[in-house]
This record gives sequence, structure tokens and C-alpha cells, in this order.
Amino acid sequence: MQQNIYDDLEFYTQYSQMARSVGGLKSAGEWPVFQALLPDLTDKRVLDLGCGYGWHCRYAVEQGARRVVGIDLSAKMLAKAAAINAHPIIEYHRAAIEAINFPPQCFEVVLSSLAFHYVERFDLVAQAVHDLLVPGGAFVFSAEHPIFTARAGQDWYYGDNGERLHWPVDDYQQEGVRHSHWLADDVIKYHRTVESYVNSVLDAGFRLDRLAEPAPAPQALAEHPEWVDETRRPIFLLIAATRQ
Amino acid sequence: MQQNIYDDLEFYTQYSQMARSVGGLKSAGEWPVFQALLPDLTDKRVLDLGCGYGWHCRYAVEQGARRVVGIDLSAKMLAKAAAINAHPIIEYHRAAIEAINFPPQCFEVVLSSLAFHYVERFDLVAQAVHDLLVPGGAFVFSAEHPIFTARAGQDWYYGDNGERLHWPVDDYQQEGVRHSHWLADDVIKYHRTVESYVNSVLDAGFRLDRLAEPAPAPQALAEHPEWVDETRRPIFLLIAATRQ
Repeated sequence: MQQNIYDDLEFYTQYSQMARSVGGLKSAGEWPVFQALLPDLTDKRVLDLGCGYGWHCRYAVEQGARRVVGIDLSAKMLAKAAAINAHPIIEYHRAAIEAINFPPQCFEVVLSSLAFHYVERFDLVAQAVHDLLVPGGAFVFSAEHPIFTARAGQDWYYGDNGERLHWPVDDYQQEGVRHSHWLADDVIKYHRTVESYVNSVLDAGFRLDRLAEPAPAPQALAEHPEWVDETRRPIFLLIAATRQ
Repeated sequence: MQQNIYDDLEFYTQYSQMARSVGGLKSAGEWPVFQALLPDLTDKRVLDLGCGYGWHCRYAVEQGARRVVGIDLSAKMLAKAAAINAHPIIEYHRAAIEAINFPPQCFEVVLSSLAFHYVERFDLVAQAVHDLLVPGGAFVFSAEHPIFTARAGQDWYYGDNGERLHWPVDDYQQEGVRHSHWLADDVIKYHRTVESYVNSVLDAGFRLDRLAEPAPAPQALAEHPEWVDETRRPIFLLIAATRQ
């Protein structure tokens, strides 16, 4: 069963205070790279898997999308989305990503930002996304990078004086659940390899167009000097693919 | 200028004693995965970039290849290849991978095993490989994994009792030269990200068919229990692509 951690009050409260929650896309370090992977959204039907506060849905509307559907498992996230990112052509639905059920070929673009590491069977999600995209449709997503998710601790290895010595990797090829401690205790995430992300996309019938492991851009680093260690290991994996 | 470390006596002596040097393909833990990525080689013209002892060239002949060319920068490696893996249809040439110069579309298959981490400009190599392959031709290669090459030390992080605590990653997005200490002092390798490997292949005009980060197979682990830590972090990245 899917964990609905975003409806956990402690977790939600923490999440709601993050820069990207308050400031939206411009406060997300990887957004410029994600944005560049998206196709022209003019007149497109767009599905956002794990839409959260709806920042990407709103962006799609601003870019001229014809229909935008955002789904999320969390009632709290959707309530916030309805409050701050509502628009007549955006539909917000409460559902698990694994349970998406739309007619075949009813979207031109499916995007997902930092949600798939909560999904146990990404291979099945990729297959479902393939079926609901039109031929030539775009699938663009980000997830926590396998280097980041390999160890449940999801933290640096520190020296005696609290300095960040390096990022520890272990159990990389042991895919599956990780009981992480991100914003709250026992947040269930699923680690998989880069191999699994890429080959699941290929096996589902997509052409791989781009892979990215972005570090913050120089300008973003100038504005957020506290992000300097984000150049030491990737925290996000981004993939853009086209339905064949 | 390319470092010719395989002609360094100390390095070569060490290398010549490795299991994969003595035993050939069957002693290379990643070989079953590499093998599965190769197309049918029957009647194919095959180029091996960084052929070393020629094990892959010999395999290509055994699989029915029509022409096999192996190139390597090291005279010592080529001398050994000529001694143990000679065959009338195999041509061994001494050349740097960066200097390959063949007529367009004169090979159906280009393979490379664990050589590209010695190459500074993989993007240029991918472009050159694209040009010398026929349309539909296969490009299959392995390289040391970016998780493995990120830090020049290329070693585990050890606890007080010498136990392997985890694999340290740092400077992942800082691509470029690494003065590593693998088999000898100051072996020059080039670190690049998974993103760079994948996107260079795509930019050169290939379709990505498969990516692999193999751990040793259960049978290999049973035969080589000393490989158990190879399931804790990937040491090799393998990619299979088709020239468009």
C-alpha cells in the first residue's frame, strides 16, 4: 500500500516550509534543467503525476496548455494546490500514481517532479504512461537520484568536526524500500538504479531523449551559496523520453 | 596527450596478473552482461577500441565476424594480443582511441571494454564511432562507472578495523582528469557523469538501447565470494546504442 506521508502533519509542516514549497518552481534548483526538457506546451493536454502544490500545473497553463490534470495522493497537498494554484482548466484529482486510469492516448505530455522515488513499481508506471500518451508524446520526469537514495540515511558522511567528508553510497544494486528520515521518521522511499529507470522507460516503448544529473547553475549558486555541496553528488535524476 | 600507462612496466606487470588478464572474458564479472548487449556478430565487421589482450576480438571471430580490427595504444598489450589471440582475420593496430581514422560506414559493430575512462573527450569519440558505423550499426561499450571514478582515490571508506564502511562519492559533477592510483601511481583517468556518457551517445546520433550497472551474477559470486562487495556500488557502466 502506498504511504501517504504528505498527509502526515509533521511531515507536511516541514515540507510546507521548504523553499520550493513557498517559492514554487523558481526556488527549485533543478527547475531550469527540468524546464528545458519539456516540449512546447501550447495546446497540449498535460498530466502531472504527483502534482503537490500544483506549481507545474500552473506553469503548463501559463505555457498555453489546453487541459491540465494533476494527481496526488495527499489531500493536504491538493487543498493547497486548489488554494494557491487553481485555474479553470486545471483538474486536481486525488489518486495514487500507481492507480492512474485514463483512456489511451489522451495526453500529449506527462510530467512528474520528484514523486517516482515513492513508487514501488516504476516499470508499471512507465507502461501506464506510455499507454495514455499519444504517439510522439513526451514523458519528462525527475526523481531522487539513485546515488541519493541508495542508503536510507540519505545524508553526508561527517568528520569529527561536523564537516561533510563525502557522500556515502552502499547497497546500490539492492533495489527496494528504504525507510528514510527525510523531514520525518520512516518516510518510505524506493531505491532503484539508474539502469532500472532508463531500461524501464525503454522497455515501455519510449525513445530516450535526454538524461540529466544537474548541479545548481552558477546563478542559482550565487543566490543560494548554501547549495554549494549540491555540486558534490547528484540529488536528482531527470529523464526526457518520447512515446514511440 | 594520451597517457600510455599500459606500457609502464610496473602497471603492466600488475595488470597482467589480474584474473581478467589471465582468464579472459570468462573471468570478467561483467562479461555476461556485456555479451548480452552485443548483436549477432555473424558476418559483421567489428572494431574494438582499446582491445588490450584481444579477448573480445577473438570472441568476435568465434562468433563468425567477417573482419575484426583491434586498436590499442599500448605496444605491450598488442604484443600479448598477437601472442595469445592472433587470428588471420584479426588486425591489431597501435593507435589512440581519439585518433581512430577509418572510412565512413566501414563497420557494423564497434565495441569497447573499459577503455573510455582513459579518454578525455568521449563526445568526440562517440561522434567518430557514429561516422564509421553503417546505419543500424551497433555501439556497445563499458567504462568505469562514474560512481567509481568520481574520487581519484577509487577506494572504499574504511572503518577503524579496516572494514569497508561504504563507497565515498564526491566531486561527481566536476568532470575531468583524475590522478588515480589503480595498479600504479598516477594513472590518468577521466571522470564524467552518467549524463555525459548518455547524452554524448544521443548527441552523436545514436538511439540508446540499453544501460547497465551490473553486479556480479549469483553464479559468479558463488565462484568468486571475494566479489561480494561489488554488489554495494557499481564499478562498471555499460551502454548499447544503435546508429540512426
